[in-house]
Order: sequence, then structure tokens, then C-alpha cells
Amino acid sequence: MRIVAVRERAVPIASQIANAYIDFSRMDVSVVAIETDLVRGGEPLVGYGFNSNGRYAQSGLLRERFIPRLLEAAPAELLDEAGENFDPERVWAMLMRNEKPGGHGERSVAVGILDMAIWDLTAKVAGLPLHRLLADRYGDGVADERVAVYAAGGYYHPGKDESALAAELEDYLGMGYREVKMKIGGASLAEDVRRIEAALAVVGGDGARLAVDANGRFDLAAARACGEAIAPYGLRWYEEPGDPLDYALNAALAATYAPPLATGENLFSMQDTRNLVRFGGMRPDRDILQMDPALSYGLTEYLRTLAAVEELGWSRRSVVPHGGHQFGLAIAAGLGLGGNESYPKVFRPFGGFADGIAVRDGKVGLPDVPGVGFEAKSDLIEVMRTV
Amino acid sequence: MRIVAVRERAVPIASQIANAYIDFSRMDVSVVAIETDLVRGGEPLVGYGFNSNGRYAQSGLLRERFIPRLLEAAPAELLDEAGENFDPERVWAMLMRNEKPGGHGERSVAVGILDMAIWDLTAKVAGLPLHRLLADRYGDGVADERVAVYAAGGYYHPGKDESALAAELEDYLGMGYREVKMKIGGASLAEDVRRIEAALAVVGGDGARLAVDANGRFDLAAARACGEAIAPYGLRWYEEPGDPLDYALNAALAATYAPPLATGENLFSMQDTRNLVRFGGMRPDRDILQMDPALSYGLTEYLRTLAAVEELGWSRRSVVPHGGHQFGLAIAAGLGLGGNESYPKVFRPFGGFADGIAVRDGKVGLPDVPGVGFEAKSDLIEVMRTV
Repeated sequence: MRIVAVRERAVPIASQIANAYIDFSRMDVSVVAIETDLVRGGEPLVGYGFNSNGRYAQSGLLRERFIPRLLEAAPAELLDEAGENFDPERVWAMLMRNEKPGGHGERSVAVGILDMAIWDLTAKVAGLPLHRLLADRYGDGVADERVAVYAAGGYYHPGKDESALAAELEDYLGMGYREVKMKIGGASLAEDVRRIEAALAVVGGDGARLAVDANGRFDLAAARACGEAIAPYGLRWYEEPGDPLDYALNAALAATYAPPLATGENLFSMQDTRNLVRFGGMRPDRDILQMDPALSYGLTEYLRTLAAVEELGWSRRSVVPHGGHQFGLAIAAGLGLGGNESYPKVFRPFGGFADGIAVRDGKVGLPDVPGVGFEAKSDLIEVMRTV
Repeated sequence: MRIVAVRERAVPIASQIANAYIDFSRMDVSVVAIETDLVRGGEPLVGYGFNSNGRYAQSGLLRERFIPRLLEAAPAELLDEAGENFDPERVWAMLMRNEKPGGHGERSVAVGILDMAIWDLTAKVAGLPLHRLLADRYGDGVADERVAVYAAGGYYHPGKDESALAAELEDYLGMGYREVKMKIGGASLAEDVRRIEAALAVVGGDGARLAVDANGRFDLAAARACGEAIAPYGLRWYEEPGDPLDYALNAALAATYAPPLATGENLFSMQDTRNLVRFGGMRPDRDILQMDPALSYGLTEYLRTLAAVEELGWSRRSVVPHGGHQFGLAIAAGLGLGGNESYPKVFRPFGGFADGIAVRDGKVGLPDVPGVGFEAKSDLIEVMRTV
């Protein structure tokens, strides 16, 4: 059993959207296909991976450092003891050989892409959907068959007023979502408050069904001012108020803002997440951790991250990955996380879930196919097969 | 005044050395040349940049994201108000446009390379050595004309015994260095203690002239065990005992290890360094911060980092950059830092200082040429001119 080829291509996921920090008009992702000498249904068995939105394709790092390491490894180095399947932990260690500690960005994305493809392969070799493989290996054998998802949208567009925002969120409810998320921090506080009130009206005034996301835009004074303005709404969560690495800001805000906070999508290693939990004032009884496995060295590192936060008193149910992709969904189902993000309208085809599985009552199911489930999402697998 | 071309090439700086974490046999760096339409001495004025050792060339990120942004900018966007020189802060902001916060690695290296070249250009346009330009802009106008440097070596080689280590360090003293640094953590504690004692004999038993570097290898128990073994020697510093992001480990060690600690070479942003100072237990009365401007978004971010640590009660004299390159030396001289690393035998031609300026009594001078000083280091400028 061995890898015969690793291919990579950068693919646009440009969207005409903006959050408080960046616009996405030139965003792209890398898609990787790892082809093996195994055959399934007359075709070579291939594992696929891609990175999540927000951090660009990683063609250079993949082609210059990480794919060569994968291809240079002796085939047996990548397999489990019995030689019967790939061993993601051994592959990961080989990918990170001669990499210094610290500096977790970009590289974490490149390795995350390859790690996703290796897990896809591993589940395919085992003949299992990834979420069931994970429940067998790391849980009590029972995966969640339906996962809570929330609709992330509410981006800024030039000329988009409160009624357009309300119509967008209304649309998500019509698709079966119960909880929605909108961007803040890209307009004045007064305008954001008007937008939040328009959004709240859509969810029947129930703050627990509306989250807001500042994308790290605020300093402490602005984060507090916004927090004071929105605290009465009791929102589902107030996301990334300040810089993702400003743990002191987060802790200071958590000391005065009582409803839930959420952050973590821009923390790309166990070490960084553990620092957030140790120093960021996050409260395990209410707050949400949002690390994205596709951006943070893959599932292999995510298992370490989950172990680290559990050791510090957190439940896996407080972890809701960023990214809105099938990899996050399979991990959430297989490891019993609290849910998964979903982008109903943007980042296609990388966002979204399997064909024919609708969101109902705010939850979505998973397809019963081996691997992450890409073969059950026709728009995505079509792109993957071109790589 | 405008940029007419930006060229990049990956160049090996392979060395047959290993620290406790990686081997350097396949290490490379990116060299960048930014050519302008200005003419000096009949030649186009060019600014050069490169990255420091340990983090590989960044050809992909440079060619895919950062060089295109530089070339797409309107020329006036990159200049100061008067249009008379480049404005490194404006260039930096343009390079980081549409980059999300957090995740400081690789990208920090790519941007650091371009930032170095822009500062080289800015000083050349001003007709000043960079260290004098910095002293004028950010200090009292007086740069240090000689900077303390220590000789970093003492790497592991197969078959290298204590007498070979002692001979290597002896050699550095013969070159004019007073302080030397050696690697630890890549052998048993007993063997490392024998190596340290052999090294101490070279510096006349004076622990204040010998630093040791574990390159982030130890967990807390191992860091403490080593700390207990070496505390009696009163070494110059004990560097990177644990993972560079494990601030809790560092704080726990600092609570029991009384002599100086040093760390920071793997922290690549103001945010990460500020977290070390806030949460890592580092003591401003004795410890050393070693952030490398070439790896951490360049001098432009370094100025923010220095401002952040000064606000937290640190002196610039406690900052001694990693990397052993002329950029670090110019910054140390111009901003009044505590010194600069030096690798007398490895990482040529990127390590080392200007031709004909010898180390004397542990200090080295700077050449009186405009820019960072590359044109006064013949082996380096020869490589740069091939780009």
C-alpha cells in the first residue's frame, strides 16, 4: 500500500463579501489529491484535502516543502504497525520533520490540507465514513448522526441595508437553520446595533438564536463599548471581539461581558489554543472555542488540541469548528463536538454538506459513504477530480 | 520614484549541523531584490532582503501573494507624504491588506524579507547607513557604533566530543568574541553537563560568558532537571528551555531557575512577544528577548514589538536579536538594543558582518555605507546580485 502521486491545484473561492477585516474577492484555496496504488471499484483510491476559507491557497509551501517530504518517505513509514492502513499520526510526524516549533500559520494550513487527505484515505481504506471511524477510535463507538449547524452570513455589502440583512437571515431560517450569525465591527456601533435589532426581529427576538462576529477588529475600549450595547440582547455569542492573540483583552472583556464569548478560528495549534484557555479568561460554562481543523495542522493536531482543552476543564460540546466544511462536520459528529459552522450562500463548493441532506431544526446529517464524504457532494467532488 | 521590478530566488544555506530539534542540511532562504527607477553611480538603485536561518525560503508566499501586492500598488501609495522616499510603514500596510489577524508564521517571514529590502532602499535613498537613519528617526540621533555580539555554535555533529567542542569555542575567542553559546538538549543531561563543563573551561570558568540553548526541546520536568543541574554555573543565559509558545512552562521554570533565561526567536509578531512578556514569567531585570526581525514581519513590526515590551517595563538593552545577520546588527546599533547574535562558522554568506570589520573584545562595528550594509559584505552582495 503506497502513495503513487500527490497533486495540488489552487482554486478560487472568491466571494463578493467583506468582514470587518478583509474582503474575499481574491480568496483561493489549495485542493490536494493523494493517489494510492489501491483500487476501489476499478479506480485508484484517492484521498482529498483542501483548506478552509480566509487563509489563501498554499501551493508554494505544499510544492516546496510538504509534498516532497510525503513523496520521499519510505512507504512503510506512513502506515500503521500492521501495514494495513495509513497512520495519520506517523504521516504528520514525517511532514513536520525538520520544522522548528512555534510560528503557527500558513504551514499549519498546508499540513492541514495533507492531513485531511490522509484521514480521507484512512477512512476509505477502513471502508467507513470518517465520523464513524473517529467514534470507534476516540469515542464510545457512537457518532452523532446529526450535528447542530448555524448559518453564518450577514456580511457587509455596499448598499446592503437592514431589510436586505433581514431578508438574508430569513432565507436561512427557510432552509432549516434555527441559529444565524452576522458580522459586526465593519460599521459604526449605532449602525451595527440597528442591524442587530433587525436580525433579532427575524429570530423572534430570541437573542440565543443570533451570534455576532467582529472578526478581531476591536481594541479593548471598542470591544467593551460594543459589549455594553449588546449585553441586554443575551446573544448566542459575541465572536472574536479583539485580536485573536490578545488574550489579555479577551480576559478583560470576559470580566465584564456576561453572555457567551466565542473565538479560536485564528489559532492554528494546540499551543495557541491552550494559551487562549489558560490566559484568555474564557469560561467553560458558557463560552465557545472555534478552532478550524483545516487551518490548524489537521485533525491530528486537533486531537491534541481537544485533549489539552479537556485537561483544562472544558467539554468537547463547547467546541464548534469554524469553516463550514465537511471535514469539520465529520469531526464534530465523530468526536461529539458542540456543532459546526455553515455558510449557506458563500464559499461554494468547499462550504456546505452532502447532496440531498437538508438542514432540519438546525441540524444536518452526514452521508453514509467511506471517507470524509466528498463523493456525496457532487459540486465539490467534481472540482476535486480535476486536480 | 517607483519600483520597476521585484525578483526572488531561493538559495541554499545548508549546513551540516543539528540542534535539539532539527537538522539544517536542507535549509534554504529567499533572497529578494527590489529594483527602482532611481540611479546611483550609473546603476539602478536596488534594495535587498533575505530571511534568517531556520524557517526556509518563502518563494511560494512571495510569488503568490506578497510580490504581486507590491507590484500592483500605485507608486505614490508606497512613498512618504513628501514623495521623497519610500515609507516602510505604508508599504507594510499594503502588503498585509486582506490578511486576517493571527497565525503568525511563514507569512511573517515573507513579509520580513520584503520589509528588509524596503528599509535597505529607504536608507539608501536617504544616503545613510540604516543604523544612523534609525537613530535619527527613533532615538536620540546617536547610534551605537559598536555592538556586543556573541558566538553561537556548539552544535551537535556525529562523533563530535567535548574536546572538539572546546576547540570550536576556543576558536571563537581567538576571533575576538568574549561570549559563546552552545546547544544542549540533543543528548542526555549527563552528556550535556560534561559538554557544558568542557565549554566553561574555555571561558576560564566564567559562567557569565557561556550561554546554552535547548531549542524548545524540553517539557517542564526536563527543563527543571536541566535547570537544577546548570544553575550553579550562573550561565549567561538558558535559552528556549521549552516550546516557544508554552508561556506557562516558561513561567514555572522562571519561578525556580534564578539565573537569566532567554527566548523569543520563534515568536513572529508583536502579539506573540507581548504574550510572552505578559504571561511567560520573564524577568526584566535579567532575562533576554531574542525576536528576529527578519522572521517576524521585518523592522516595521519590530518597532511595534519594542514599543509593546517597553510599555511593559522592559529596556531595549534586554533585547538581543536572533539570526546573526547585518539587518539585526543595524537594528541593534540604531535602536540601542543589547547586542546581536553571530554565527562565526555557519549560515554563510547570510550570517556574518561587513568585510574587514573584526570582532574586538566581543564587539563589532558597522560599515559606513548607505543601507543595511550589504554592499560592504562581498560574499553576500555577490549572491544578491545574481537574483
